[in-house]
Amino acid sequence: MNEFDIIAKYFAPLSIDGLKDDAAVLALPAGHELVVSSDTLNEGTHFMTGAAPADIAHKALRASISDLAAMGADLLSYQLNIAFPDAPAEAWLAEFTAALAADQQHFGIQCSGGDTTSIKGALSISITALGCIPSGRQVARSGAQDGDIIMLTGPVGDAFIGLEILRGAIKPQDPEPFLEAYHKPRTACEITREVRAHARAAIDVSDGLLADISHMAAASNLRAVINAADVPISKGARALVEQGAFTLESLIAGGDDYVLACAVAPENVDAFVAALAQKGFVAARIGLMEAGDSGLILLDVSGEIVQTKQTGWSHF
Amino acid sequence: MNEFDIIAKYFAPLSIDGLKDDAAVLALPAGHELVVSSDTLNEGTHFMTGAAPADIAHKALRASISDLAAMGADLLSYQLNIAFPDAPAEAWLAEFTAALAADQQHFGIQCSGGDTTSIKGALSISITALGCIPSGRQVARSGAQDGDIIMLTGPVGDAFIGLEILRGAIKPQDPEPFLEAYHKPRTACEITREVRAHARAAIDVSDGLLADISHMAAASNLRAVINAADVPISKGARALVEQGAFTLESLIAGGDDYVLACAVAPENVDAFVAALAQKGFVAARIGLMEAGDSGLILLDVSGEIVQTKQTGWSHF
Repeated sequence: MNEFDIIAKYFAPLSIDGLKDDAAVLALPAGHELVVSSDTLNEGTHFMTGAAPADIAHKALRASISDLAAMGADLLSYQLNIAFPDAPAEAWLAEFTAALAADQQHFGIQCSGGDTTSIKGALSISITALGCIPSGRQVARSGAQDGDIIMLTGPVGDAFIGLEILRGAIKPQDPEPFLEAYHKPRTACEITREVRAHARAAIDVSDGLLADISHMAAASNLRAVINAADVPISKGARALVEQGAFTLESLIAGGDDYVLACAVAPENVDAFVAALAQKGFVAARIGLMEAGDSGLILLDVSGEIVQTKQTGWSHF
Repeated sequence: MNEFDIIAKYFAPLSIDGLKDDAAVLALPAGHELVVSSDTLNEGTHFMTGAAPADIAHKALRASISDLAAMGADLLSYQLNIAFPDAPAEAWLAEFTAALAADQQHFGIQCSGGDTTSIKGALSISITALGCIPSGRQVARSGAQDGDIIMLTGPVGDAFIGLEILRGAIKPQDPEPFLEAYHKPRTACEITREVRAHARAAIDVSDGLLADISHMAAASNLRAVINAADVPISKGARALVEQGAFTLESLIAGGDDYVLACAVAPENVDAFVAALAQKGFVAARIGLMEAGDSGLILLDVSGEIVQTKQTGWSHF
């Protein structure tokens, strides 16, 4: 299949208007601003060589739309730029686009365009997510205030364990929930209304909980104090910690969870918890924003400061 | 330099807000819709290995914003996703971002975000251009009508000759104008108001004049009849044709010019020519849209049908 056949058969059906023009035209709801974010995933760097096309599709789309959720934005569409090292097999394309179609249905989003190219090297996927937000209502990283409670919109660590399973470092009895957490992160896209109603600042946990909360603290000129014992982890992850397979700290430092870390004014915490519960999300208090040198302090169960250098992922 | 240092030193200064958040927030002018388009350029496929970073930057940005011009849209911002095979040299980054900064100034556009990653393979650059247009005023490929005049907003062929020079196929006395046409296409971004005022359909000439006009004709269910002798080419290109270095047909089939092909109602042709002249653009009539089997006919100087199979570029 050549480029035009691939687009016509596999990508055009994902799109709003069949990708018939040079560019897509999208109307924003009245009183809204545009919110935009891009993510690139490369084979052998962000996902394993030979990974299942559905897993790649879910991860690429969800990693990208998660950034809009962190702003409290609602989803509009996405642009898909995909570079193939060789002409892709039709079976690969069918599985990849079926997974995108399923996520489009799940999240209420459509493809608005993109580019299909060939590349000398690794498969590369860039997604630019487009969303909107009532004007002036975006939730920035920098909005946290002294005394705000740091809350998570879900557990962390399962995705890190999923990655360790993929690397062959561990073989738990039931790997599926961990692999699912890694490949198909839930995101906070369903609770953006609640986030913008209650959170003063937010960031999505992609590089690692500690690294990402450090970014939020730095942007807000505050220090984040995190209680390790309060960080929610799944039952399965807790069992593995108790077996000694992982330390709690390694799960907390791990990334790829795509839950939100939010800074919430103390008086809004109960309302935030209740609002998320109505959507099936369990919000957890894990720490405090406080004045002082910006940075992050992780406290263990006994209130001792844990030294940790493992603060996230950087390319190069 | 690690990823965060590269972003802070080189990419953040290009941006609206210093790339401080998960996503950028952009306000559209009242009564406008969003227009979005994406392009990917890969080293060794879209540009030569070792190409000058400034050339890559200009080409990547201009190829992408040209698609917005083809819709008659005005520019807002762009997202830059760049994947490096190795940590890039600072000199490379400095030249690349200086070229982007110059184009930002020239076109009145800013970087709204993106992603910087590492890749096992070729340098890959995806740009998503964001623009806006008064609601309902977009110029589609499909809007041409029987009897419309096909017009070009500038000459074609120089970029094709520039590529042949880069390939070492030809060594003209003064290669610079051709290389400039290839690396820094002028685009039609300065004349979008005129395009949407006068054109019923438009497409940018990227894959090749004949291929792109064929797309417009097919979208409009019409046949395009192009007079080869009327297609504008530069003096330098004409001299090379007269020397026998190229046929006129090869220049017409070539791509990368990023002028617009527009379908203009006969009664609007003079106004379109005059409006473009005021902006320093020379519009040329090159053919006619007519009813009949959709497709494209190229006529030579004597009105004979030229057989041409060379209709553009496809990946794979």
